[in-house]
This record gives sequence, C-alpha cells and structure tokens, in this order.
Amino acid sequence: MKMVCTKKNLNSGLTITSRVIGSGNTLPILNNILFKTEDGRLKLSSTNLEMAINTWVGGKIEEEGEITVPARLINDYVNNIAADKITITSKNHTLFLEAEKAQTHIKGLSSEEFPLIPEIKDENFAKVDGKEFSKIIRQVTFAAAFSETQPEISGVLFSFDGSDLVLAATDRYRLGEGKVKLTAPITTPKQVIVPARAVNELARIVGSGIVEILLGEGQICFRAPDVELVSRLIEGQYPDYKQIVPKNYSTEAEVDKEQFMQSLKAASLFTSENKNIELDLNPQNKQIVIKSQSSQVGDSEISVDAVFAGQKNTIVFNYRYLLECLSNLADERVTLKAISSSSPAAIVPVGRENYLYIVMPIKI
Amino acid sequence: MKMVCTKKNLNSGLTITSRVIGSGNTLPILNNILFKTEDGRLKLSSTNLEMAINTWVGGKIEEEGEITVPARLINDYVNNIAADKITITSKNHTLFLEAEKAQTHIKGLSSEEFPLIPEIKDENFAKVDGKEFSKIIRQVTFAAAFSETQPEISGVLFSFDGSDLVLAATDRYRLGEGKVKLTAPITTPKQVIVPARAVNELARIVGSGIVEILLGEGQICFRAPDVELVSRLIEGQYPDYKQIVPKNYSTEAEVDKEQFMQSLKAASLFTSENKNIELDLNPQNKQIVIKSQSSQVGDSEISVDAVFAGQKNTIVFNYRYLLECLSNLADERVTLKAISSSSPAAIVPVGRENYLYIVMPIKI
Repeated sequence: MKMVCTKKNLNSGLTITSRVIGSGNTLPILNNILFKTEDGRLKLSSTNLEMAINTWVGGKIEEEGEITVPARLINDYVNNIAADKITITSKNHTLFLEAEKAQTHIKGLSSEEFPLIPEIKDENFAKVDGKEFSKIIRQVTFAAAFSETQPEISGVLFSFDGSDLVLAATDRYRLGEGKVKLTAPITTPKQVIVPARAVNELARIVGSGIVEILLGEGQICFRAPDVELVSRLIEGQYPDYKQIVPKNYSTEAEVDKEQFMQSLKAASLFTSENKNIELDLNPQNKQIVIKSQSSQVGDSEISVDAVFAGQKNTIVFNYRYLLECLSNLADERVTLKAISSSSPAAIVPVGRENYLYIVMPIKI
Repeated sequence: MKMVCTKKNLNSGLTITSRVIGSGNTLPILNNILFKTEDGRLKLSSTNLEMAINTWVGGKIEEEGEITVPARLINDYVNNIAADKITITSKNHTLFLEAEKAQTHIKGLSSEEFPLIPEIKDENFAKVDGKEFSKIIRQVTFAAAFSETQPEISGVLFSFDGSDLVLAATDRYRLGEGKVKLTAPITTPKQVIVPARAVNELARIVGSGIVEILLGEGQICFRAPDVELVSRLIEGQYPDYKQIVPKNYSTEAEVDKEQFMQSLKAASLFTSENKNIELDLNPQNKQIVIKSQSSQVGDSEISVDAVFAGQKNTIVFNYRYLLECLSNLADERVTLKAISSSSPAAIVPVGRENYLYIVMPIKI
C-alpha cells in the first residue's frame, strides 16, 4: 500500500475507529485498526466482535494494499506530530508513515488475521437526521439494563413504524422512550433490539448529516457520511413496555430542571444505602418538597417551586433514577407526573412531545 | 454557635479547606472540618496532621461556638443548594443549616477531638507576591522525590537570602530551581525544607494578594488574605545541589516549547521500558532530531527546528524527565543546553532569568 493524505483527515478517522477498541483484549488483532485501500480511498476498520466501525479517508492512492496496526499507538502518534501531509506505505507487516519532519515504522499484523466485518448490501431501510437521532439516543439509552442474564433489555428497542422511529430502553425499574422522524415513511413496520453499547457509540459518531439505516441477517448498519457502524442485533422478545405507561395522572408539577436536579443531588447526600428520597408534591404551597434522612449522616428538606395541576401526592424514589434522566435532558423545564405512591410516575420535558421517562416508585 | 453568612463565601471556604482532607482516614475526625467562631468571623480548619488549612468566612455572629462536620458532605451539600444566605447553628454535636428553601441537620463530632493546629505567633519573616509565587511553585515542586527513605528530598528547599526566595526540588536525577522576589529584603539568610505536598497545595490556595511567610519551631505558615496554610518542616540536610549545576555549556538549542513537547510525546510511544530517547543536537541542519525505538513496537525519528549556538551533541534522556518540565512551563520558547552525553543538561525558558531545570542524561 502507498497513499498520501492530510494529517487532519487521518487523525479524525483514527479517532473514530479507535473508540470501539477496548483495553485488555486477549486477541491482539482486536487492538488493531485495519488499513485498506478501497475505491480510491483509505478505509479504516475496527471491531470488538459485537460491533464494528468503518470510516473512509480521502487521499491519493499510489498502490493498493492492506495492513493492521495497534490503534492506540498510531492514534497517539498522529495526534502528536506536526504535519500537513502524511505518506502511508506498508511492506512486510510494517507501516511506514512519513511527514516532512517525522517518520516512523510501526510493526503491524497481517490483515488476514482481522475478523471479517459483515457487509450489509441491501438498500437502506430508513433514514433519519443525525443530529436529532444522537440527541434522542442519549436520552433513552442510559435506561437500558446492564444485565447479562436478560440480554433483550441490555439493548435498545428500535421500532420503525410509518414516519417514526421510536427508541425504548428499560431495566424494568424505569423506561426511556424517544421518537425521531424518518425522512420518508416506510411501508412495513419493523422492530429490532440493538446492544446499548453500540447505540451509545452511534451517538458519538453521527454528525449533522443524514444517517441511513440498513438491516441484514442478525445485523444492523448505520451509515453516516464517511463513517458507518455495524452491530449485531439481540435476539429475543422485548418486554411489552407500553402496558406500564399510564394513560392519566392525578398530579402534574412543572419545575426548573436544573434547580430540581441540584436539589436532588443535595438531598441524595442524606440517603442510606437504599438511596430513597421522598417527594411531597404540594399544590397548596406550590412546591415539591424533597425529604431525605440517614441515621448516620443527618437529614435534609429542600423545596423547589413548581406549577401544579391536580392533587397532593407523596412518593418515594431511588434518587439515581431521577437524576440519570434529568442529567441527560437539555430542556429548561420538565413536568413530573404522578398518580399515587405505588404507581409509575413520569418525567416529560415541557414543550416537547417526543420524549417520555417512566420511573417506578419505591413502595415503603 | 449561630451565624449568618452568604452561600458564596461559605462555599469557597469549604472548597479550600476540603482539599487537605484525604480519603480513607482511619481517624474519623480527620474527615471533618472544624467550624469555630473567632473575632467576629467563622474560622474553618482542616488538617491531615502534616499540614493544616485555616480560612475565614465573614458574616454575622449571633452566638459563639464550635463543632466539626464531615468535609465532603457539607461541601457537596452547600455546592448544590440554591441559596443566597445561610444560617448556621450548632447544638449537641449537630450542625443545622437553614436557607430559604433548604434546611439540613448534619451529624458532627465534638471540636474537642479535633487535632490542635499549631499557631505561629511571630511576626512575618518574609513576604512574596502570591501570583508569582504560585507560578514558580508549579515549575519546581514536580521535581521532588516521592521517596520515604530520603525524606529531605521529598520536600522543597526554601532558601531566603537578601531580596530572594529560591525554591529547589530534586530527586537526584533532575532538579528544578526557581526564584521569586521578596517584597522587602531580609537580613538573616535562612533555609527550610517544606513537604512537597504542602507546597503543591499552597499553589492552589494563594491568589493574587501578598503572601506572608512565618517561621515557627519546626513549622512554617503561609498567610494569604483570608486563608493560611500551616505545615511541618522536614528535618535534615538538603543535598548541595549547586555543585551539579554546570557553569558553561557546549551546545545551546532554542526551540518552540509546544512543538518540542508534542514531538517528545510522539517519540515516547516508541520507547521500551527504559523510556530512553536520543536527542541529536545538530547545528548544521538547525534541528534537534528525536530518535526512539522499541523492538516490539517500531521506531520513530522526528525533527524540531532550533536556533543553535555551539557544537554538535548527542544525548540520551528518560523522556519523562523532559516532558514533566516542559508541561509545567507556560513559556513559548525554551533553550536546551548540553555539554556531552554524560554531563547534566539544562532547560531554561527564553527571556526569563528566574528558572532553571537540570536533567541527568542516561549513560548508554
């Protein structure tokens, strides 16, 4: 292989592909990035066997070829050298990088050892706007379970229907659901479960362009300009979460999100190991009063101004389930909706219809 | 105790005092901050037995008193509540904080259990400008040894002489020396060794005001406006480091600091466990060529443009000793000065006379 490209392009390609690569891989080839000339560009690939990232770097190809080199090493190296253009040559499992003031030989491994990354040849199934997509991903994915024993809820449910793509994630104690518009409606509804880690990675790599979604046999591919992420799908039946979403609420309290979040953080310092805090929704005082106590540390009572609809209510929550949702929202105000101390409650952003968070109270 | 102060003032006082407190103290009282009314203000104190910080918070004292409470807890709490003014009351080993929308009881420990912090009553021995002082501290202190077996070089040598305070730190492989002007000359020269950790902490707490330095029996106190740090001194004979500082050099190479640093970082990726890199100082090519190689990873050669005086030289260094110095300098350009492959070399900032770094080469 021999090609010339800019340091800037190579750097950003290496940064994107390096992210998938974990530390402590027992299989050395998984620490490496695959360099391969393809259709007049350099294709960089990385994989952790569950998901893979391909990205393309423009440049001038003088000789076709392929090789793999350690991801962290080459990424750190290119990051630190001062260079405009870099000439990349491979020979005998060694990559030779040459810039005006820097040159290096990096020992690599044969590209033949590199795991095959599945190619999904079909036409795209659906398209979404990258920016909206990555926003909704961040607001939903954190709610997925880490469970290895329940693989289906360790993923995010993607439901394609008409003009909508609905993402949902739950660990059975709370649920995040967000909607993003498809750029064109689809005719056949479809549901797939994508591993949460791949979905999180996706939020980092998609930019402001259009993202094409391709479905293959047990695989999904998200294709943005110059970069794509391929992930295996999780098999199994996703829980029918719609049935736990309440139709009506008896109390609605609208608050400043930041203030609510800070107050919950302060209150959380006075919880015991159970992490319980009590919220008194008090329409008469126009306040949510957050109460917490720990026999070892002390107690706390903090009021947050709220605009109310409905009746008085008192509910106990695990504060982490509230904070995780709030810290992933960029909205200025949110509404907390409740029914009773034993029914699921909801958090929704004010002035936005495409997001819902459901959280189960702690029954005392 | 009963007093009223602003959240802002309490917050900054708690942040400063919390820093000294480590984690995993076996003695619970060392996790606590001492609150004590004193001369119409609230005095906050913390200690790790080696050093202590006192800071003062203005406010309205209604009732004298003292108590200790867990540092991290109260710091996080005050940080997170929305409040202008806070009323602080103590009673029966409990601290009661009350703001408009938040109130808390925090369980504390009796102030009688709190270690006595030595008071140095003498008049100040010397004074320095806080801003210059903290800059020089950062450029010198990193060079101190971590050694417990050689306590004298685990500290920073403070040499007061005439109008100068000279700080020096070494681990016997490298040496940092920096000078700061005293606001008024002193008559009796004096040398003391201050633990490096206390000196580092000092750089964080002194602001732009004047810092008074007070010397007591085995103790030193640095007093800035509203905050002071008291540290024990290290006994022992500091090595006579002046003798290793070369008088003349045979090669001087002036380089862009940032570019030199980045190039060293890139080169460092190709060192073995010995961390050796070779610098070829080449007046003819007007370049420093940085060479490194590792049998496992590969090799690298990077050139940095330099303005030379003197002859050609080749020296091997542990790259960490160069990077640690450069990353602590804010100067745009530095000069590397060398004699031979077996003599100490120097790094000095261009256009500044008050700093010197000496580093021993690796003899191959």
